[in-house]
Amino acid sequence: MRKTKVAVNGNGVIGKRVADAVSLQDDMLLSGVCDVSADWRIRVAASNDYSVYAFDEASGEQMKTAGIDVQGYLPDLMAASDIVVDCTPKNIAAQNIEHYKNAGLKFIVHGGEKHETTGHSFSAENNYQSAMGRDSTRVVSCNTTSIVRTLTALKKAGLLKRARGTLLRRATDPWESHLNGIMNTLVPEKDIPSHQGPDAQKVDPELDVITMAVKVPETLSHLHYWNVQLTRNSSREEILAAFASSTRTAFINYSDGLSANNAIKELMLGIGRPYGDMYEVAMWEDMLKVVDDELFYAYVVDNQAIVIPETIDAIRALTDLEADGSKSIEKTNSSLGISGSFFENML
Amino acid sequence: MRKTKVAVNGNGVIGKRVADAVSLQDDMLLSGVCDVSADWRIRVAASNDYSVYAFDEASGEQMKTAGIDVQGYLPDLMAASDIVVDCTPKNIAAQNIEHYKNAGLKFIVHGGEKHETTGHSFSAENNYQSAMGRDSTRVVSCNTTSIVRTLTALKKAGLLKRARGTLLRRATDPWESHLNGIMNTLVPEKDIPSHQGPDAQKVDPELDVITMAVKVPETLSHLHYWNVQLTRNSSREEILAAFASSTRTAFINYSDGLSANNAIKELMLGIGRPYGDMYEVAMWEDMLKVVDDELFYAYVVDNQAIVIPETIDAIRALTDLEADGSKSIEKTNSSLGISGSFFENML
Amino acid sequence: MRKTKVAVNGNGVIGKRVADAVSLQDDMLLSGVCDVSADWRIRVAASNDYSVYAFDEASGEQMKTAGIDVQGYLPDLMAASDIVVDCTPKNIAAQNIEHYKNAGLKFIVHGGEKHETTGHSFSAENNYQSAMGRDSTRVVSCNTTSIVRTLTALKKAGLLKRARGTLLRRATDPWESHLNGIMNTLVPEKDIPSHQGPDAQKVDPELDVITMAVKVPETLSHLHYWNVQLTRNSSREEILAAFASSTRTAFINYSDGLSANNAIKELMLGIGRPYGDMYEVAMWEDMLKVVDDELFYAYVVDNQAIVIPETIDAIRALTDLEADGSKSIEKTNSSLGISGSFFENML
Amino acid sequence: MRKTKVAVNGNGVIGKRVADAVSLQDDMLLSGVCDVSADWRIRVAASNDYSVYAFDEASGEQMKTAGIDVQGYLPDLMAASDIVVDCTPKNIAAQNIEHYKNAGLKFIVHGGEKHETTGHSFSAENNYQSAMGRDSTRVVSCNTTSIVRTLTALKKAGLLKRARGTLLRRATDPWESHLNGIMNTLVPEKDIPSHQGPDAQKVDPELDVITMAVKVPETLSHLHYWNVQLTRNSSREEILAAFASSTRTAFINYSDGLSANNAIKELMLGIGRPYGDMYEVAMWEDMLKVVDDELFYAYVVDNQAIVIPETIDAIRALTDLEADGSKSIEKTNSSLGISGSFFENML
Repeated sequence: MRKTKVAVNGNGVIGKRVADAVSLQDDMLLSGVCDVSADWRIRVAASNDYSVYAFDEASGEQMKTAGIDVQGYLPDLMAASDIVVDCTPKNIAAQNIEHYKNAGLKFIVHGGEKHETTGHSFSAENNYQSAMGRDSTRVVSCNTTSIVRTLTALKKAGLLKRARGTLLRRATDPWESHLNGIMNTLVPEKDIPSHQGPDAQKVDPELDVITMAVKVPETLSHLHYWNVQLTRNSSREEILAAFASSTRTAFINYSDGLSANNAIKELMLGIGRPYGDMYEVAMWEDMLKVVDDELFYAYVVDNQAIVIPETIDAIRALTDLEADGSKSIEKTNSSLGISGSFFENML
Repeated sequence: MRKTKVAVNGNGVIGKRVADAVSLQDDMLLSGVCDVSADWRIRVAASNDYSVYAFDEASGEQMKTAGIDVQGYLPDLMAASDIVVDCTPKNIAAQNIEHYKNAGLKFIVHGGEKHETTGHSFSAENNYQSAMGRDSTRVVSCNTTSIVRTLTALKKAGLLKRARGTLLRRATDPWESHLNGIMNTLVPEKDIPSHQGPDAQKVDPELDVITMAVKVPETLSHLHYWNVQLTRNSSREEILAAFASSTRTAFINYSDGLSANNAIKELMLGIGRPYGDMYEVAMWEDMLKVVDDELFYAYVVDNQAIVIPETIDAIRALTDLEADGSKSIEKTNSSLGISGSFFENML
Repeated sequence: MRKTKVAVNGNGVIGKRVADAVSLQDDMLLSGVCDVSADWRIRVAASNDYSVYAFDEASGEQMKTAGIDVQGYLPDLMAASDIVVDCTPKNIAAQNIEHYKNAGLKFIVHGGEKHETTGHSFSAENNYQSAMGRDSTRVVSCNTTSIVRTLTALKKAGLLKRARGTLLRRATDPWESHLNGIMNTLVPEKDIPSHQGPDAQKVDPELDVITMAVKVPETLSHLHYWNVQLTRNSSREEILAAFASSTRTAFINYSDGLSANNAIKELMLGIGRPYGDMYEVAMWEDMLKVVDDELFYAYVVDNQAIVIPETIDAIRALTDLEADGSKSIEKTNSSLGISGSFFENML
Repeated sequence: MRKTKVAVNGNGVIGKRVADAVSLQDDMLLSGVCDVSADWRIRVAASNDYSVYAFDEASGEQMKTAGIDVQGYLPDLMAASDIVVDCTPKNIAAQNIEHYKNAGLKFIVHGGEKHETTGHSFSAENNYQSAMGRDSTRVVSCNTTSIVRTLTALKKAGLLKRARGTLLRRATDPWESHLNGIMNTLVPEKDIPSHQGPDAQKVDPELDVITMAVKVPETLSHLHYWNVQLTRNSSREEILAAFASSTRTAFINYSDGLSANNAIKELMLGIGRPYGDMYEVAMWEDMLKVVDDELFYAYVVDNQAIVIPETIDAIRALTDLEADGSKSIEKTNSSLGISGSFFENML
């Protein structure tokens, strides 16, 4: 079986997870991980027997000093790969993209980049097909992924008229919460509408969605509150059935003790997810409310994890590994333990 | 000039502020403060030369041991007062109400109590008149006060059709944040709609308002996000003019560096407000957005302070001190330094 | 090979980890897990194919309603076991102990209980031998375990005269940080010396140790600062060698990017530890300082995990599975991936 | 009466407090406040009728645009002043110092600067006299001020042999906690001993003091834990008497409900301190413990406020306003409401 050789550039929050997920796919091969860091983070990558490449000579020297077995530099990794997933910070990514293009290498960027960098914004359950064979795509951000995923389900059911959301964003990620963060305060995003609504429309222009966003002092995950104007009066049952059509949206229940973001995180650790990652949108089933033609609901988004399965699917689409989006999704889900329910596997 | 003798029962977050505010009114006299605590909190009240009463014999003994000059017990304080403002915790208040009724004493409860306890829910700019001469009223909670205040302004301008809000509630108050709190998580309220919407309708049944609420890990203030369906297309200017009609709603600007709840708190401390209290709804002027017939905005509510001016007005209404609501409001505002703008007084 | 049948009573922070660790031992068999909860927590246990027992009939009914396959009640589990590890909350444990004693069942309690409940306090590297064949022991608390572990190493090297520590204690555990916690404050323990010093002396009366403790607003782990009076002038090298003699103390370096508790947690997740657990005392090698005959150092204690290997060793000691403490320690370490270094396995 | 004209350069956390405190002195005149900010912070200064100066032309233009009445630039302010208190950030201060020296203007810098910048480090109760008539001095940092203050008291009583402290430092100040901070973690300072010990010796080389320090996730105040080797066996009474000799150390009691940093902050707000400022070291009387010749205690330091009275005294010393340190201290204390006890004034 042909295996797509995948390079990961940037061993950060997203990069290390993409590398782990690629390693789990039977139709992919992790060609290597490239980074600038020479500290404990790259040592963890090395300990997983990933091939480590240095971004440049300076970082290569530091890695060698730290005892890392450096396989080469970014161009070497690119030469050994069919596609590169760029997981570097914003400004760096823009430069990298030029390198990939010049080398004629397919690539994927993430939600920090603008739509225009690739001309295509990806969300598997919405537009897998349109990414087939492309040179590049952008896997949209964690927040946007959750929006597209959930609203696509409502749209497919013919129920979506207009969605208005308030997004509570975790202030920083756990691994760097000693470096930057906010304390005992809330920080609204200045612009209303916030960028996530227009961003979702880059994937699907038909989505009528406006968002407001605020940074909150926790590190675990985002929390979204939605008020949706439906196309007609509906019922809880109908709405739940619509959301259940997304394989990457899973219901949780407040009555089951899952009443806060930390409890959800502990559940993920308990069921053995690496890093306690949650790839699914976790939607509270027993909080969801329908009032005539209005729908109210809340869900949790693991900002570190939700784009990982999307990225795996995007690799398949770009490299023509799988022509059927739903088959790719199923394959990815299976490899990562995504079953549509956190408990289905258990009982 | 006749002065209304006001008792404060419960020297907690609200009670101590009511006592301080009553002391500032030229038509009121603080007859005393009643509490169960014998620790630093009641010592602060005593240091203000407030007459201290003990809730019962047990607490009276503890106070005396702690060197507090105890003036008597709750019945003594009631006998010396024209009206009592009950600021005790939920379960205690229910019992107290029976005492007040039996004694034929006018009383005010706060938002923790049910509407039914008094049959009247108070918010000065909306329904001062209807409280005139009543035996009792309930000053609605901090969140509800802010909702009624802002939506009343839109309603008076003929602009309000339907309001949908997401309420981020501070998890606990600063003075007891060592006793209970939440850490690095978000805790949604189970019920959608949350109770604040229906509660606002206890003041004004015409308000079409549905809310969702979530507890967030900070202690400073609440933050509300609103999406309002207007009766027609409107403009920022028109909306701002409508909100400006409320003397207790003040604009702030993100561009002025007031970009988070903590900065607003520091401003209140800087302009000399006791405890850094903010009696006003602080609404971001430059974040507010009108899209056709939809309005989006966010504001901050100081949950410890916003009901204080309302309580002072409620005292005037119940005891017939002032027949004109707008005059009472003006009087209260003047005593507390409320001018409709945090900077107006300054420049 | 004979396998000891181990019951775990209480499926909380410690209990679920003990159950997982017992399952990894080739000389033990997890006979079952007993709890009162019928929510997501016990569903995770069930999903691991652990035999679930209900603490009493009431909880049994709730579990059955929740779809849990209940195997019986606590007495049934006790009858099917050679030893029970009690991981229930403080007051409950006291009652359970009577049951175990009446049933003639060996048992282990944890640090929340008093030394007197068993008459023996256990810390593997210090006093494994003295627990051999006993009916019961108490595995000392997380903080005390770290103290005994590190000071035993200094004592064995003949270097320990007197140790004075300041203990920063995490305020609550991640899984219940939505229920109780402290916010934006520090809460000193009233009593100086705090109880950990005397508690360490229950394991080893020769340790001259006094501690002060304070609760801090984070959920990840404890942080200890120590000032040790040595028996004589020493050097960093000698001290590091002494600490290295403990197989459950591992060095970390600030210069390696491990500069805060959150980075250490992320490392544990990165090297695949379940729940990101750290069984070792993580001591900063490059922060440690010797000034003549004084030693200064800091280390991190994972309060959820550090007692897990100790408990496994205690099971072996009580049930005569292994007469040699160092062999039991080695066996336990191997099963849990404890190697004395977080990176040794990797590079 | 001659009044010293005092300029404040930098309207930040310390600067705005110095300006307010100078305004309260009957022998000083606030000549003006200089800053670069044109946002709400300088508007608060303007609203206090302080003369506002711009640091440079660029900031002056921004201030004017924001409607601030700008009186001139830094050189203008310097020309109108007898002394300048520099409260600018680290790098800026170094440049300013050159300007002050060139202009022959006396000046005071704060603890962020090196001792060498002025050649003198100031702490009123220790070395007021040695600052008399000098051209400049450095008021040592908040942590160092508390150390010198408390250890000087023990030294004067002939009790101090050797002090070892662990310092828990608030991570950031409330007003900028939306910009930087740490979340759910602890961040040790890399260097042991930390810089505060040697810094205290810049004031008094006779103090044998070694410290370790750690950043903790709260914004209110620092918390110090100390273990002091006394010169001989002592008693609580003797130690308390020694500390009581400092007019700026005040006792608090855990048993009085003052059991955490947040409760102490609320007390300061309750007794009417501006910003809830605490100028005193707040030492727990009932936690303090003497074991033979060892002393253990903990205290809280308000990092925003503790240096304010010191700065006022330093102004008097440098400008020969008062030759007797204890008289200056008494004068300053009286103006700021410092009485050695938080309750003395009250009961």
